Amino acid sequence: MSYAIGLDYGTNSCRSLLVDLETGEELGSVVFPYPSGQLGILTDPADPNVARQNPQDYLDGLVKTVTGAIEQAKEARPDFDAAEIIGIGIDTTGSTLIPVDERGMPLAMLPEFKDNLNAHVWLWKDHTAHQEAADITAKAEETRPEYLAKCGGTYSSEWWWSKIWHCLNIDRPVFDAAHSWVEHCDWLPAVLTGTEQPGQVARSICAAGHKAMYCDEWGGLPDKNFLDSLDPALADLRERLFDKAVTSDTKAGGLSAQWAGHLGIPEGTAVAVGAFDAHMGAVGSGVKEGTLAKILGTSTCDITVSPSSKELADIPGVCGIVDGSVLPGNYGIEAGQSAVGDIFLWFVNHLVPDSYGATQDEKFINMEKAIADGKPGDTGLMALDWNNGNRTILTDVRLSGMVLGQTLHTQAHEIYKALIEATAFGALTIIKRMEEYGVVINDVVNTGGLAVKNATLMQIYADIIGKPLKVAASDQTCALGAAIYGAAASGQKTIEEVQEKCCHMRERVYTPIAENQKVYAEMYELYRTLHDAFGSTDWSGKIDHVMKDLISIRERQRG
Amino acid sequence: MSYAIGLDYGTNSCRSLLVDLETGEELGSVVFPYPSGQLGILTDPADPNVARQNPQDYLDGLVKTVTGAIEQAKEARPDFDAAEIIGIGIDTTGSTLIPVDERGMPLAMLPEFKDNLNAHVWLWKDHTAHQEAADITAKAEETRPEYLAKCGGTYSSEWWWSKIWHCLNIDRPVFDAAHSWVEHCDWLPAVLTGTEQPGQVARSICAAGHKAMYCDEWGGLPDKNFLDSLDPALADLRERLFDKAVTSDTKAGGLSAQWAGHLGIPEGTAVAVGAFDAHMGAVGSGVKEGTLAKILGTSTCDITVSPSSKELADIPGVCGIVDGSVLPGNYGIEAGQSAVGDIFLWFVNHLVPDSYGATQDEKFINMEKAIADGKPGDTGLMALDWNNGNRTILTDVRLSGMVLGQTLHTQAHEIYKALIEATAFGALTIIKRMEEYGVVINDVVNTGGLAVKNATLMQIYADIIGKPLKVAASDQTCALGAAIYGAAASGQKTIEEVQEKCCHMRERVYTPIAENQKVYAEMYELYRTLHDAFGSTDWSGKIDHVMKDLISIRERQRG
Repeated sequence: MSYAIGLDYGTNSCRSLLVDLETGEELGSVVFPYPSGQLGILTDPADPNVARQNPQDYLDGLVKTVTGAIEQAKEARPDFDAAEIIGIGIDTTGSTLIPVDERGMPLAMLPEFKDNLNAHVWLWKDHTAHQEAADITAKAEETRPEYLAKCGGTYSSEWWWSKIWHCLNIDRPVFDAAHSWVEHCDWLPAVLTGTEQPGQVARSICAAGHKAMYCDEWGGLPDKNFLDSLDPALADLRERLFDKAVTSDTKAGGLSAQWAGHLGIPEGTAVAVGAFDAHMGAVGSGVKEGTLAKILGTSTCDITVSPSSKELADIPGVCGIVDGSVLPGNYGIEAGQSAVGDIFLWFVNHLVPDSYGATQDEKFINMEKAIADGKPGDTGLMALDWNNGNRTILTDVRLSGMVLGQTLHTQAHEIYKALIEATAFGALTIIKRMEEYGVVINDVVNTGGLAVKNATLMQIYADIIGKPLKVAASDQTCALGAAIYGAAASGQKTIEEVQEKCCHMRERVYTPIAENQKVYAEMYELYRTLHDAFGSTDWSGKIDHVMKDLISIRERQRG
Repeated sequence: MSYAIGLDYGTNSCRSLLVDLETGEELGSVVFPYPSGQLGILTDPADPNVARQNPQDYLDGLVKTVTGAIEQAKEARPDFDAAEIIGIGIDTTGSTLIPVDERGMPLAMLPEFKDNLNAHVWLWKDHTAHQEAADITAKAEETRPEYLAKCGGTYSSEWWWSKIWHCLNIDRPVFDAAHSWVEHCDWLPAVLTGTEQPGQVARSICAAGHKAMYCDEWGGLPDKNFLDSLDPALADLRERLFDKAVTSDTKAGGLSAQWAGHLGIPEGTAVAVGAFDAHMGAVGSGVKEGTLAKILGTSTCDITVSPSSKELADIPGVCGIVDGSVLPGNYGIEAGQSAVGDIFLWFVNHLVPDSYGATQDEKFINMEKAIADGKPGDTGLMALDWNNGNRTILTDVRLSGMVLGQTLHTQAHEIYKALIEATAFGALTIIKRMEEYGVVINDVVNTGGLAVKNATLMQIYADIIGKPLKVAASDQTCALGAAIYGAAASGQKTIEEVQEKCCHMRERVYTPIAENQKVYAEMYELYRTLHDAFGSTDWSGKIDHVMKDLISIRERQRG
């Protein structure tokens, strides 16, 4: 028997998953909500952009979730032996940054900084560095356009350099006290393997490549001159960061004696280099060449791979292309939609009358029933899915939602259907952009609550995307991906082999219905016209046909 | 003392108003719901486009409402004497057509046709003649573009020739039995004055000019060749219709002995030529050069005048320009929005959650409260008011509604505000079009439920339109206008003189607030861009700035 443990560090909690590597059976899983702050997030009443975390929460979670999962495994399988755990893998959110001292100790854990939010973990959704992000984008556009091409054209306030520079600008004592900075996904493997010196910490190519402008093409991190042009202190810092980032099948080290004791797992057990949650989630969904892994949640993350042996140009508007960020030997390609489930939640909570039901769930269920037997285009409506801006392919937060085609008879469930369709058209736009640049996508594996719960949505997605849509069997694909990496880091298994055994699909596959596909293809042209007209500075033309075409389609489809 | 009676024949009921011509005091008013059909409308379960009426209902209503009003007047003023009623005026809906025999008898009143819907009154909202309307438009575009120029560019299924032609196409026996056709507003004065021969019936310039393509420029009704090109039977009918239509200050005749008996009013009392409700409503609102009368209801009707002595070109997209249709010696100019109150009703009934209140009224009141203290543009939203198409200035039913600018936080009352603003921008678009063509508009007099009940809406309208908005004191401006015409037809009073004494305004005038006007002017540019982009075949250009501008305005206005 052989097992691996995957650890998935989310925004509000972390969870473990203990997996049988021969069958994929999930023998134990424990969730630990971070105790600090509000739902694990330290906020500042004066600035809604602040989102920090307490690194101690991560360590507490490590012990609780791993020991708990082992206990569950022992209950499920009396002959379970923790010595058969061959590896541990970890995924986290990101860029989630920790300023550390020379011994690798988070500044937040030092008495002098324990009350200083800037010395704590800078959570991915901290948006205080928006000005620095804009300045980095502007500077890179001017002098290093190649840096931007890899990350979709715009550097984000959520990312590595924006946050570090913002810390430098607002809290010099913290910046000066930080010998180095580490991503959350790099810190935990370092902790588990007893790696104290920041210079020795194994750095994730997934994190570095997506967030820190790291690329082999230009020798790793951004060059010193560029950083100097932002602030000389950043150029100085560069030397105290890292030269090399590696893929997550790399063994960060063996479990330290101390942590072997805490967790009840043998010393020396392989600990894999970390990566981000969505990337490991894609691996746990069985991503491979030709398969797009899609996390359908409040927003989406769309990840696929393309062999590194095949040339791949930069794909305009795609958030990130990083060699090895998902699967070693493949470019990892990451895209996403800023809001999907969030749009439905907004709609149901703000604009759906109680005639659909007393609760949010009832309203969703009754709206789903009301649209289940409809035909594409029978509402006459068309929406744009930009209530939270557009991440891919427009990379523009200054966009907004739209609904068009309302009559005096339009009902809430029809608008709900239009919103579902809009998010599906948005998803198709991402796929089309990837395909235009030579990425092969044959099918889509979905995870997330919507994929599991909303069959009507899934069929609409299949009809619009025009490819078979599968749903991953595991509810914990991120942790499963982390476990797969733990196994690979041991050297005893390959990723492909574990994926084959552990990444199961649910029975129901959503296959496109040809007659629906045809109508949706027609409607996609209209969506794309609106998408480009409202979203692209390059577009110029006519849109007076849009309302009329939608009315014609509605008349035809209603018969 | 002198009095007049105004009779207002609406879609579902008719009402009388007995007015003191020295003070405008309303001494009596009775409503009579038409007893036939559903709410007075005869329908055909097989065809939702059918809307007919029973002419007997009109006669029954005449007796009930006039005698009732006189009784009320006697109660209110013991010395009231019906002999002091100097005139009777009548307005009706239109084109509401009655096929009559050689004695002027409606075919529906003949035993052989009493069960035939096609022999009944063809109510304005009967839409069975849509194909004929399209054919007339096409033919006129080809050979008589001048006919279309006066009625906004498109001939409607609601109008005179479409309906008569449709009757010819679907029910030849009725068409053949009809010696002539009369508008409802022409039939009632003929009845009251005992005018039996259709050829003697005084015809309203308001009805003929707006609906029957009648214009002095081309010698009255459309020429015989044109009608022949539609159907030779229409060309034959032309001779049995009329040569001349007149303004409503013309005396159709004196009250007949028979009807003097029925009503209790002296024989010979002046009966005015009829007109349509909105036009007489404008007169009752005090319309004159420089004043736009606006009926703010489920849809709107916007009417003003321009002196006939001043040249007035055709105004593209404006429904109708007819010399004398509103005030003698003035071009009557009619425009309108296809849906205003209807959009708010649709929204409150379909998309407003019960957290705003249990009833429609509560929801409206609470939404109004929620937006009352807001600033222009603070919602970030922009809507198009086309849920029922666009009557003026685009004259296009194949348009639809739109809401743009939604975030994940947009609330129902914010959308309500955007819908109010959109209807106000639509109203402004009509005014601007009129002004471009030299029509003077200094202020707006409003009537209708929204004008009376919704102060928040009225202030938004004032800020967007940028002119003082008054509200007529009378709730029955149509009947008041009819009474004014009744008085004028007596020859004892002029219209202006009665308007001066009887058309009072409510105390509250809505004056534009300068700082709001400025922001709304900026937003109107965006509305107009969307309006033209979606609504005009001539437009071509860029709209990628629209969402961004709305976000910028929102940020600025929220401060």
